[in-house]
Amino acid sequence: MNADTLRTVSVSPRSADRVPPAVILAAGAGMRLREGNGGRPKPLTELLGLSLLERSILSCRAAGVDECYVVVGYAPERIIHLIDELEARDGISITVVRNPDWETGNGSSALAAFSHLTGPFLLLMCDHVFDPAILRLLMAAGDGSDSCFLAVDRHIERVFDLEDATKVRLDGECITAIGKEVTPFDGVDTGLFLCSPALLHALEKPTGGGERSLTRAIRHLIQQREIRAVEVGDRFWVDVDTPESLSHARGVLLANLAKPSEDGFISRWLNRRVSLWLSSHCASTRLSPDAITLASFLIALSGAALFAVGSYLWTFLAGLLVQLASIVDGCDGEIARLKFQTSRFGAWADTVLDRYADVAVVAGISLGHWHTHPTAFTLLGTVLALTGFILASYARKEHVLRYGSEPPGGHLARLSKRDVRLFVLFAGALLNRPFEAMILVGAASHLAVGVHFLTASRGDRMPRKA
Amino acid sequence: MNADTLRTVSVSPRSADRVPPAVILAAGAGMRLREGNGGRPKPLTELLGLSLLERSILSCRAAGVDECYVVVGYAPERIIHLIDELEARDGISITVVRNPDWETGNGSSALAAFSHLTGPFLLLMCDHVFDPAILRLLMAAGDGSDSCFLAVDRHIERVFDLEDATKVRLDGECITAIGKEVTPFDGVDTGLFLCSPALLHALEKPTGGGERSLTRAIRHLIQQREIRAVEVGDRFWVDVDTPESLSHARGVLLANLAKPSEDGFISRWLNRRVSLWLSSHCASTRLSPDAITLASFLIALSGAALFAVGSYLWTFLAGLLVQLASIVDGCDGEIARLKFQTSRFGAWADTVLDRYADVAVVAGISLGHWHTHPTAFTLLGTVLALTGFILASYARKEHVLRYGSEPPGGHLARLSKRDVRLFVLFAGALLNRPFEAMILVGAASHLAVGVHFLTASRGDRMPRKA
Repeated sequence: MNADTLRTVSVSPRSADRVPPAVILAAGAGMRLREGNGGRPKPLTELLGLSLLERSILSCRAAGVDECYVVVGYAPERIIHLIDELEARDGISITVVRNPDWETGNGSSALAAFSHLTGPFLLLMCDHVFDPAILRLLMAAGDGSDSCFLAVDRHIERVFDLEDATKVRLDGECITAIGKEVTPFDGVDTGLFLCSPALLHALEKPTGGGERSLTRAIRHLIQQREIRAVEVGDRFWVDVDTPESLSHARGVLLANLAKPSEDGFISRWLNRRVSLWLSSHCASTRLSPDAITLASFLIALSGAALFAVGSYLWTFLAGLLVQLASIVDGCDGEIARLKFQTSRFGAWADTVLDRYADVAVVAGISLGHWHTHPTAFTLLGTVLALTGFILASYARKEHVLRYGSEPPGGHLARLSKRDVRLFVLFAGALLNRPFEAMILVGAASHLAVGVHFLTASRGDRMPRKA
Repeated sequence: MNADTLRTVSVSPRSADRVPPAVILAAGAGMRLREGNGGRPKPLTELLGLSLLERSILSCRAAGVDECYVVVGYAPERIIHLIDELEARDGISITVVRNPDWETGNGSSALAAFSHLTGPFLLLMCDHVFDPAILRLLMAAGDGSDSCFLAVDRHIERVFDLEDATKVRLDGECITAIGKEVTPFDGVDTGLFLCSPALLHALEKPTGGGERSLTRAIRHLIQQREIRAVEVGDRFWVDVDTPESLSHARGVLLANLAKPSEDGFISRWLNRRVSLWLSSHCASTRLSPDAITLASFLIALSGAALFAVGSYLWTFLAGLLVQLASIVDGCDGEIARLKFQTSRFGAWADTVLDRYADVAVVAGISLGHWHTHPTAFTLLGTVLALTGFILASYARKEHVLRYGSEPPGGHLARLSKRDVRLFVLFAGALLNRPFEAMILVGAASHLAVGVHFLTASRGDRMPRKA
């Protein structure tokens, strides 16, 4: 059977509808990295709470892949132990493929998985840390096609160790040359493939010296113009080979946890910096995102209780606690995204508890103010602030429900977000004017809802023909 | 060209992706109905704020159809005037087809539209009032098929004038006989078709006496087993031929405005009954749904203001106003659904204004209570009720956003809905205990959020493999 027949036989039209399985190569010893990771096999190297192999498998699942083949070679027992744990804990289907010839090159490891594969498959190395969205790009490109696809990064300036990286030259989408010494080059090989079985056939061809290198097989397909490039754009990836690149991967993962499109002003410039630092330390503990949500809630409640006392010292401490709660509120999502522990309940509970925390803080500040101002104005101010806090968020959610997107955000909308709100309360507490700060933010929030209302009403009244 | 070639030529595979155009027959004089409608041509007969023709066209648009052909015959000028208005106001593409031979039967009207049609089309009579979902059923059945489809109602007991109705006999999905005198029969012809051009070809066949009847052409296709039935299930339709059936259609339309799955206990047994009666009278006025939303909001605000006064007489009146606001709150949606005026802004504004109205009512009741109880407990009670009112709704919305569906509703969830909430405030006002009633509902709402929280947390922790 030559490469062409194999390809036409096995890539049936049905395959376009299915998610391809992933083959993860985890057979090497990773000598260059072992100095920095306590002598563990490379796949078990820990990075922000997950081993490299765990992260590869969970990245595949996050991209929608439900079937993984992990090829093991060096120190297989410890790796198999980890896989058994993962299968039991997360319910992922993982097949272990042993490659006793792992020392002959990573091509032999890919070949070891061959007997399990009947159609296209994703191929990745467990020492590559990457954005799961890249796998989705590959799958979208491969949908209905029977070529091989390699994810290529054209942002050459961001590649960590460019000298050691595998370069590619392109002719349109088609890859025409690959190798560490290729010049000139158009991009860098990210190590993420969507393969047709043609690749495995190319691997089977005998080579001099018995070495089976993936790069060699890929070169063969490139000569036949069989491999196309998929650009990864801004999506991150890091090849982890040395203690330095491990540390670089850590920085890249953390930098990708912020949400530039959603984060308010204070989040971006203050909270995220601290919360990312906190998260990087919490990641290696067993603290779950839900536990952090609860911690942030309890810190806010303590702040609320201190506000209710009313004297400056307690107010000052209360302000600090509220700002701390606002920072910790970022960590649950960061840890969840970092360790693939996001859940619908987590997201729902986080949002609802945030509202309850806000309510408690308003009640605390109002009671504190009550000691010196037991009047109807305190009552009405409380109503104003409380409803402003909740309804600004409510109107936003309702907009997402009805329109399928966040409302267009002006400055006022950004000012009514939680990070800014709690920061103003913190600042108010420092100045011993928490009630006034609360009224200010409450009024701004109502104003934001009003502006949102006017904008939406104008938008909907545009003639439908336009 | 015979029927078969025509069919294969014109129903190209592309047609499956497109929404077919609709042909609406509006050429008849409707003599039986004219006694009751002031002598207007039948298509202009008014029913709950819209003429029959207007309702047909807007029903098509609601089903996703963006191209209508209206065949006119009797009194064409007045009908064309209405169509011009509709095109200008609603931005629908409507082509008028004149049929000078309208007196030879409705078949000639269908045939008049022939030159405009190159693929499948929906065929309906302007004197049929129906649920737009039936058109979607027909389109789904016709997707990728080149048969004709007739929407058939098997709930024979609900057909208004069974004796006058056109019956059908079925063999599986295939219609084997049609006519007023068919016995035994399995269902009733609703007058809604998805046709292939084969129907038009059958119409072109010469008949004795020059009469071109649709039923005759359909019978011809039935002999060739070319017409399949699509069951309408519970979806409503009424054939309007007489003043009695017009009045029946009115009742059916109103009965279909309630939302049994969403309505709370008080909505179902009290509010809907009054609001439907109100809506049936408002429908023929120019009152827009948004204006009714605003009216309900202003009524609630007046109630809130009266609550703030504090004496029993005003409290009593305030309670009545709040309950009235709750009832009127149903009318905006009813009118919008009845007259095809639903909008995303309308839905969003209705929900956000409801929350503001609730806030105002809580503030009013709290201020009223304040006169006799100026204590911190009033303040805390206000916070409790206010946040309960808003957060019960907030947690529900957030659940829809995260899970894509309403949370499973127990009794407690139903008790925390707005209709019940406002009714309890009304009852509290009658007993001169509005503050206590407010605390009660507020506490129940928080309890509902708590139960919801526990249920959601348990649901998410089930093992993923199961």
